[in-house]
Amino acid sequence: MHSPELLSVLEALALILIGARLGGALFERFGQSPVLGELLAGVVIGNLGLAGYHGLDPLREQPGLDLLAQIGVLFLLFRVGVETEIAKMMAVGASAFLVAVLGVIAPMVLGFFCSRAFFPTHDPLTHWFVGATLCATSVGITARVLSDLGRTDSTEGRIILGAAVIDDVLGLMVLAVVAGVIASADRGRAFDPRTVLWIVAKAALFLGAAIGIGRWVSHRAFALAARLGGEGVLLSVALAFCFALAWIAGRVGLAPIVGAFAAGLIIEKVHYRDLLARDAKRRDLPELLEPISSFLVPVFFVLMGMRVDLAAFGAPGVAGFAAVLTLAAVIGKQACSLGVLERGADRLAVGLGMIPRGEVGLIFAGIGSTLTIGGERVIDGQVFSAVVIMVALTTLVTPPLLVWKLRRAPL
Amino acid sequence: MHSPELLSVLEALALILIGARLGGALFERFGQSPVLGELLAGVVIGNLGLAGYHGLDPLREQPGLDLLAQIGVLFLLFRVGVETEIAKMMAVGASAFLVAVLGVIAPMVLGFFCSRAFFPTHDPLTHWFVGATLCATSVGITARVLSDLGRTDSTEGRIILGAAVIDDVLGLMVLAVVAGVIASADRGRAFDPRTVLWIVAKAALFLGAAIGIGRWVSHRAFALAARLGGEGVLLSVALAFCFALAWIAGRVGLAPIVGAFAAGLIIEKVHYRDLLARDAKRRDLPELLEPISSFLVPVFFVLMGMRVDLAAFGAPGVAGFAAVLTLAAVIGKQACSLGVLERGADRLAVGLGMIPRGEVGLIFAGIGSTLTIGGERVIDGQVFSAVVIMVALTTLVTPPLLVWKLRRAPL
Repeated sequence: MHSPELLSVLEALALILIGARLGGALFERFGQSPVLGELLAGVVIGNLGLAGYHGLDPLREQPGLDLLAQIGVLFLLFRVGVETEIAKMMAVGASAFLVAVLGVIAPMVLGFFCSRAFFPTHDPLTHWFVGATLCATSVGITARVLSDLGRTDSTEGRIILGAAVIDDVLGLMVLAVVAGVIASADRGRAFDPRTVLWIVAKAALFLGAAIGIGRWVSHRAFALAARLGGEGVLLSVALAFCFALAWIAGRVGLAPIVGAFAAGLIIEKVHYRDLLARDAKRRDLPELLEPISSFLVPVFFVLMGMRVDLAAFGAPGVAGFAAVLTLAAVIGKQACSLGVLERGADRLAVGLGMIPRGEVGLIFAGIGSTLTIGGERVIDGQVFSAVVIMVALTTLVTPPLLVWKLRRAPL
Repeated sequence: MHSPELLSVLEALALILIGARLGGALFERFGQSPVLGELLAGVVIGNLGLAGYHGLDPLREQPGLDLLAQIGVLFLLFRVGVETEIAKMMAVGASAFLVAVLGVIAPMVLGFFCSRAFFPTHDPLTHWFVGATLCATSVGITARVLSDLGRTDSTEGRIILGAAVIDDVLGLMVLAVVAGVIASADRGRAFDPRTVLWIVAKAALFLGAAIGIGRWVSHRAFALAARLGGEGVLLSVALAFCFALAWIAGRVGLAPIVGAFAAGLIIEKVHYRDLLARDAKRRDLPELLEPISSFLVPVFFVLMGMRVDLAAFGAPGVAGFAAVLTLAAVIGKQACSLGVLERGADRLAVGLGMIPRGEVGLIFAGIGSTLTIGGERVIDGQVFSAVVIMVALTTLVTPPLLVWKLRRAPL
């Protein structure tokens, strides 16, 4: 009467909601961000196999659960965008740009030298590829911690969020260049730099159009919607806008969360004033989004934790390189603090907020493992495991570091 | 950087939200239930292929979208359950049981005769199978119309909802008997009635346990949760309860929506009084569920509309049988009104509310097309198309009929 997939998703959702709640409450009690508890609840659920119970192992790669998690992180970034003012965002544009650029270059260079020190006989291009896996920040964790602390609309928060958007574009460029050069080197053809130009042009066009005409579109869309009858119009239109921009962002090669964040930035309260006035309970957009995020956002973080493969930590010959790579990832992003131009801004908080690496690093590593130079894989099994550990550690250390730094700083 | 599936789901969600909103508003303006507008918006989106545009055709069977729709209808039934009191539900138990039984027998018998009249040379067992495709009510449509009219907690509403639960059990029995008898007849073996007993025992055990110990579990779970810190505990625990019961229902062979409805029935406001007192805005469970349902419930109804294949209506030799089958489906369920024991209850409304047939009928037809008697398929292509049309028509006629009947009746 129903798909077997539905049942396994329902089982997972029940577990995830309970695990997230218990883990979150436990860590909140100790003054931590609940997201750390959610991640660790996921680590426990995802690694029950080590204790001999493998019944939940398939959930890690369940496509339906993955979809819900992806929609969850879209909601998180959309909500964060809604809570951030676009004008204030643009005001820190220069800093965000510098932070993003420094945060890509420094970890890449550090990663290159680490890889060369550990594997001196490998081709230099493989070292650059290892460096590339360190470059892209995964903004989900930081956005969540900022949101839990009510600091998304602080100077530091805006710089980090802006830098994350630019970081995504830079990551695309780095991947295109490094993978393109390697593929060309392996086939003996010259690398065509126009591919990179095209990537940048599409991304710039999307962001320019979103900011340039997005507000006009949002204003018109809500004005039209206000003429429609029915309840819940505000939420439907806002969500349609969010999904449409996330979809377009994905189509031009950017991360869909960049589109969701842009959608949130663009929508301003004045656009939906008429709709708000009609709601019996005068529920604002953030208030309407809250129940949906409190359902779907933990799915993302628990699933992220579930995918931390503790077994990878014990793989032979991996631990040393993983430790060095993680240090390079953490220290490299501290260069970001040099890019903060605003006086009085908490530079260290920006550097800490840029630490988490996520699935972009894993995707880079995955692509690297399909590329070869002279018959050898660019990213071999050992290096891949080290990248997995680096992603796990940078994800797990950020919430406590950021809570520690921001709690000490005056609001 | 992301799955291609995510992008096509985002595209679909943006379209569905806009389509649902436009369709819903249009039909609400004419005094109709918005669900009819959502269904018809889906019919339009799903049949653009007839106008030559096939770009959206894959969305009809997109697994991620289907999952979101299934979760949407779970939320609908959960919310309806939350709004219904279990004691009042039990009070109409006898009527619900009679309504369900009559509503299964009458359409089955009518379907048998219709099939025999059209296909006199077929085996009598195939006629029973056609009858079986008419037996199961799809409660989603009716639940939604009742909810839109604020009538879920009326006597008629409770009888329909209770009958739908029993109907689901009866449907499982009918399928097991008819398919079992046919498979036995084809292989020349005797049918084992114990399989049916086992189905009924599992379903009865689940429903008994849910009502018997579910309330105690709900009370304890919310009391424990009240000791946890953090925001949004009420929603998380309620949803975990809903998903867990939907999962167990699915595991014992029932529809997951029956589990979600049972979860909603069980949870009572007194269980979460402490949690409610702690919420800054004192948001009740129905209030917290509303934004999630207004996002996911239309996904279910628009997707249902998208799956209405208008091309089936034009298939040669189908229209006549489809018309008769639809009449049998509509008239057969009017026998339900005889089962209403409560004085003053609107018997016609109950009969109309039981009309919609949904995916259970299609699943029956699908199973029938895999079974053979004497080398011939029990449900051939023509009959299958007729069942598809019957499902579409019973779905589309119910909202206006129910709105017409309930709007005239005093509250």
